[in-house]
Amino acid sequence: MGEAQVSLQHLFRVFTKPEHKDSKLAQIEQHLSDNILDFLSQHVVTKKTSLEEIEQDFSDPKVPESPEFVSSHAETLLDKLVAHSVNTYSPTFIGHMTSALPYFHLPLAKLLVGLNQNLVKIETSKAFTPLERQVLGMMHNLIYDRPDSYYTEHLHSARHALGAFCSGGTVANITALWVARNKMLGPKPGFAGVARAGLPAAYRAYDVNNVGVMCSKRGHYSLSKSVDALGIGRDQLLALPCPEQTLRPEEALAAGKRYQEQGNKLLAIVGIGGTTETGHVDPLDELADVAKELGCWFHVDAAWGGATLFSKRYRHRLQGIERADSVTIDAHKQMYVPMGAGMALFKDAEDANTVRHHAQYILREGSKDLGATTLEGSRNGMAMMVYASLHIFGRRGYELLIDQSIEKARTFADMISRHPDFELVTSPRLSLLTYRVCPDSVQEALGKVDKHTREALNEKVDKLVVKVQKQQREAGKSFVSRTRLEAPDYPDQSITVFRVVLANPLTTHNDLAAILAEQHLLAKQTSDWQALVNQDSPLTEASRG
Amino acid sequence: MGEAQVSLQHLFRVFTKPEHKDSKLAQIEQHLSDNILDFLSQHVVTKKTSLEEIEQDFSDPKVPESPEFVSSHAETLLDKLVAHSVNTYSPTFIGHMTSALPYFHLPLAKLLVGLNQNLVKIETSKAFTPLERQVLGMMHNLIYDRPDSYYTEHLHSARHALGAFCSGGTVANITALWVARNKMLGPKPGFAGVARAGLPAAYRAYDVNNVGVMCSKRGHYSLSKSVDALGIGRDQLLALPCPEQTLRPEEALAAGKRYQEQGNKLLAIVGIGGTTETGHVDPLDELADVAKELGCWFHVDAAWGGATLFSKRYRHRLQGIERADSVTIDAHKQMYVPMGAGMALFKDAEDANTVRHHAQYILREGSKDLGATTLEGSRNGMAMMVYASLHIFGRRGYELLIDQSIEKARTFADMISRHPDFELVTSPRLSLLTYRVCPDSVQEALGKVDKHTREALNEKVDKLVVKVQKQQREAGKSFVSRTRLEAPDYPDQSITVFRVVLANPLTTHNDLAAILAEQHLLAKQTSDWQALVNQDSPLTEASRG
Repeated sequence: MGEAQVSLQHLFRVFTKPEHKDSKLAQIEQHLSDNILDFLSQHVVTKKTSLEEIEQDFSDPKVPESPEFVSSHAETLLDKLVAHSVNTYSPTFIGHMTSALPYFHLPLAKLLVGLNQNLVKIETSKAFTPLERQVLGMMHNLIYDRPDSYYTEHLHSARHALGAFCSGGTVANITALWVARNKMLGPKPGFAGVARAGLPAAYRAYDVNNVGVMCSKRGHYSLSKSVDALGIGRDQLLALPCPEQTLRPEEALAAGKRYQEQGNKLLAIVGIGGTTETGHVDPLDELADVAKELGCWFHVDAAWGGATLFSKRYRHRLQGIERADSVTIDAHKQMYVPMGAGMALFKDAEDANTVRHHAQYILREGSKDLGATTLEGSRNGMAMMVYASLHIFGRRGYELLIDQSIEKARTFADMISRHPDFELVTSPRLSLLTYRVCPDSVQEALGKVDKHTREALNEKVDKLVVKVQKQQREAGKSFVSRTRLEAPDYPDQSITVFRVVLANPLTTHNDLAAILAEQHLLAKQTSDWQALVNQDSPLTEASRG
Repeated sequence: MGEAQVSLQHLFRVFTKPEHKDSKLAQIEQHLSDNILDFLSQHVVTKKTSLEEIEQDFSDPKVPESPEFVSSHAETLLDKLVAHSVNTYSPTFIGHMTSALPYFHLPLAKLLVGLNQNLVKIETSKAFTPLERQVLGMMHNLIYDRPDSYYTEHLHSARHALGAFCSGGTVANITALWVARNKMLGPKPGFAGVARAGLPAAYRAYDVNNVGVMCSKRGHYSLSKSVDALGIGRDQLLALPCPEQTLRPEEALAAGKRYQEQGNKLLAIVGIGGTTETGHVDPLDELADVAKELGCWFHVDAAWGGATLFSKRYRHRLQGIERADSVTIDAHKQMYVPMGAGMALFKDAEDANTVRHHAQYILREGSKDLGATTLEGSRNGMAMMVYASLHIFGRRGYELLIDQSIEKARTFADMISRHPDFELVTSPRLSLLTYRVCPDSVQEALGKVDKHTREALNEKVDKLVVKVQKQQREAGKSFVSRTRLEAPDYPDQSITVFRVVLANPLTTHNDLAAILAEQHLLAKQTSDWQALVNQDSPLTEASRG
C-alpha cells in the first residue's frame, strides 16, 4: 500500500494538482464518463457476498496514521466498496426508489464540489441562494399555481420563504410539522408561543391535553420520527387502518372529532401523495375538506408522487394537493436528481416565519439567507441539480417519464394478473405495486376457506415470499423489495408481499418478464412450494398446520 | 436557446449517452479537472454585481415547458450561476469555514453520483453501510479511544450505533439533544417515555417545570433551533454571558443549581470545541465535572474544532472532550470534505436506541440499516468522502494541516497586533480570530475615556468596520466576515469586528498582509476615518456625538 510523504508540500499538491491521466482515479473517472452502465456492470460484483464478509473490510476503528497515495486508495475503493455496492442503475433493480440518473449529473456533481458553496447564507453562496429560491418557486408554482404577482412579491423576499430545501423527505416532513406546530401554538396575549416557551407551557396556555397528527397506517415512518422529535409523542400519531391503502375521509373526520372532544387539538392531517409501500394516493381533495372542518393544518407527503404533477394526463390523481398548507417533494425520487434533494413547500410564504432564527454573524435580520428558516444549517448547492433537471427535461420531458412509469406499472400488473401463480395484491395507482407468488391452487383455496385456515395458509405463503425475495436478491440479477401490509382481500391480516417501484426509465417489459420468471422458478424450487401444492387439499393441509 | 426533442428516445439518450467530448459540459468538466483554480478565476466574476441584479436571472417561477439541450443549459449555468458564485477556493476568502478542497473529491463526487446509493438501508447501500459504520467508529475512536473490544462489539452491531452521520452540524446537534432528551425522560414504571407520550406528559411524569440546555452566549444558533424543534422552547436555552468567550465552570455550576432549585431539570450542558465566531474552546474537562455534579448530559459541539484531535501538539486544547456523552464534528469543515458531512458521536453506543424507529419495508427489527437511529431518512454516500480523506491524509496529514492553520492564525494575530491602526479583539485559540480597524489615536483614547464616551466611540468604529467589510467584499479580491460580540476589553458593549477563519491551506502570509493593507486603505478613504482622527480630541468629539 503506497504510503505517501508526510509533508506540507505533498499535501498542497493534493489540493492543487489533479491526478495524472493514467492514474487509477482518472481511469475510474473516464470509465464513468464513457459508459456508466458498463463501469457498474464491470465493477459491481453480482455474486453473493455476505454482509459479515463485507464488514470484515470495514472493521478497523483506528484512523490510519500515515497518508496514502490517492491512486492506491482508489484501488481500495474499487475492490472493497464499489464491488460490494448496489447497482441502482440496473434496470432490474426495481425494489426501491433509487434508480439510474441522467448522465449530466456526473459532471454537475463535479461542478458542485468544485464550487463548494454553502447555502446557509448568501456570503457563501451568492447566486446559489436566488437559484434555490427560484427552484422553490417553480415547485411551489407547480403545486399551487398562484398568480404571478404572488411570486413577484415573495420569491426573493427577505421576509418570506416559499419552502425549505433540505436533505430529504424526512427533514421536509419534520420541517412542515414544525412550522404547523409553531403556528398553531403561536404567540398570543399572555403567551410567548411554543417556539419560545416550549410545548408543555403551550398545552397549558391553549388548554389542551394532547396534540395529534393524523394519517393512514401507510404514513411514512418519518411521521413517527417527526412527532417524537417535535415532542408531541408517537402515541399521538393517529394512524388509521386503511385496508384500501388510503385514508377514508369520513373516518378521518370522525376520528378527528372524537380526538378533539377528548380535549385534544388536532395539529395536522397528513395526506399521502404516493405511499412508500404501494404508491396509493389519499383522497386529497376530500381530506382538505376534513382538515378545514376540523380546523387543522393539511400536509401532503408527496415525496414520491409529487412529480406526477408534471403530467397533464395523471396530475389529477393528486387533485386537492393545491389546498395543502404544506407539501413534501423529493427531487431525488421521480425527478432523477442525485440523493439529497428534499423540499417542503408552503402555500403561504409567511408560514416559514414561525421557525425563523437569526444569528449575529450570519442570518442577520433582513438578510435573504436561506438558513434562517430551515431546520438544517450548512447545506450544499444541490438545488443546482434540480434547477438543471427542470430545464433539461422541462415539464414535457418529465411528463413523458412519469407517464411511461405509470403505464409500465400497469403493464406489469397485467402480467402478474395473467400469471396463474402470482397474485396482484395492490394494483398500481402511480408506479408502485405489490404482489406475491402463490400457487394457483392455493389462491383458489384462499377464497373458500374459513378465516383461521386462510390465516394459516397466508402465513405459509409469507414464508415462501420471503424466501424467494431473499434468494433473488442474493442471486444478484435483480432486486425486488418486500413489505408486510393489510391487503384489500385479507383485511384482518398482514401479509408479506413483493414491492416493486418502476422508477428506472431503462427498465423494459422484457426485464419485468424475466423477473417474474426468475421468481417463479425460485419459488417452485423451494420445499415450501412443494408443501403448498403437493398436499391432497390445501384446506386440510392448512388446517393441520 | 436549443430546444431539445420531446421524445422518450431523446430522454433515454440523456440517461445512457454521455455528452460529446467537445460539448460545453465536457469542456467545463475538463477545465475543472485540469485546473480548478484557473477555472474559478476565469469564470467567477469578481466585479460587483448586486444581489438584485442576480435575482433577475432567477425570477421565473414557471417550470419551463420544453426540454433544453444539456450543452445550452451548461452555458446558462456558467453565465448565470458560476459567474456569480463565491470563489471559496480563493486563498483570500477567509471569512467563513468553507474553503478549497483537495482535488480527489472531484472524481469521487462523480463516483458518488454514479453509484447513487441510499444509506438509509442496506438494500440500497450494501458496502456503504459498513463503511459508514467504520467512519463513525474511527471518529468515535479519535474522541473516546475506547478499548478495541468495544469496537469489535459495537461497530457493526444491529442493536447499536456509535453515532449518526448527517447533513451537517445543526442536524448533529439536534440529534444529540434528541437522544439526551429521550434518555433523560425515558420510560419508567407508569410512564411510556417521552418518545411515545410526548413532552408535556413527560414533565408531569418527572414532575419538572421546565427542561433546559446550558451553553455560553457563543453557542451556535443551531442550539436555539434544537430547543425550539424539540419542544423545549428557546427560553430554556440558558446562554450565559462570556466576556472571555468561554463558559466559566463555576458560573455554569451556580446557574445550573439555581435552575434545578426552581423545580427544573437541566437536560444538557453544551461545551463548545471551537466557537463559530472566535474559535474559543470551552474548558471541557471542568464542564464535564459540572455536568457530572448537576447530573446532566454533556454534549460538545466540536463541529469546527473536532479535527484538532488529529494533532498531537494541539489536541490537548480539547481536553475533556472524551468525557462528553455526545460530540458533534463536521467533516466538511477542517477535514476538507465537501459540504454535507456532519456527525454526532455517542460515547455509549446504547444511547442511540432512545430514538430508534422501525418500519415494515425497511429498517426492520434486527437489521443493520442506519436509518433506524438517524433523524434523516434517505441519505447519500457522503461517508465515502470522509473515508477516503481519512486514508489519503491519514492522522499525520491532518495533523500537519491543523498545525499550520493554528500557526498561521497566530502569525496573523501578530501582524494585526503590530499594526498601529488595527486592534486584535480575540486572539486565536484555534484558527479563528477577530479584530477591527481602528485609528491608533482612537485606540489610545478608548483606554482613557469614561464608559459613555467609550460606547459612543465604539459605535463610530463599528460603522467604520461595517463599511470596510462591505467594500472589501464588493471589491471582490478578498473576503473577511464580520460579527458583533462582547469583547474582553469592552465587556458591557457589543462591538462589530472582522472575523477570520484560516481554513484554506493555500492562504499565505502574503495573502494576509495584502488583506490587511487593503482594509487599511479602504478605511482611510472613508469619511468615518477622517471624522475619527481629524477631531481635536476624540474625547470631545465622541462626547459631542
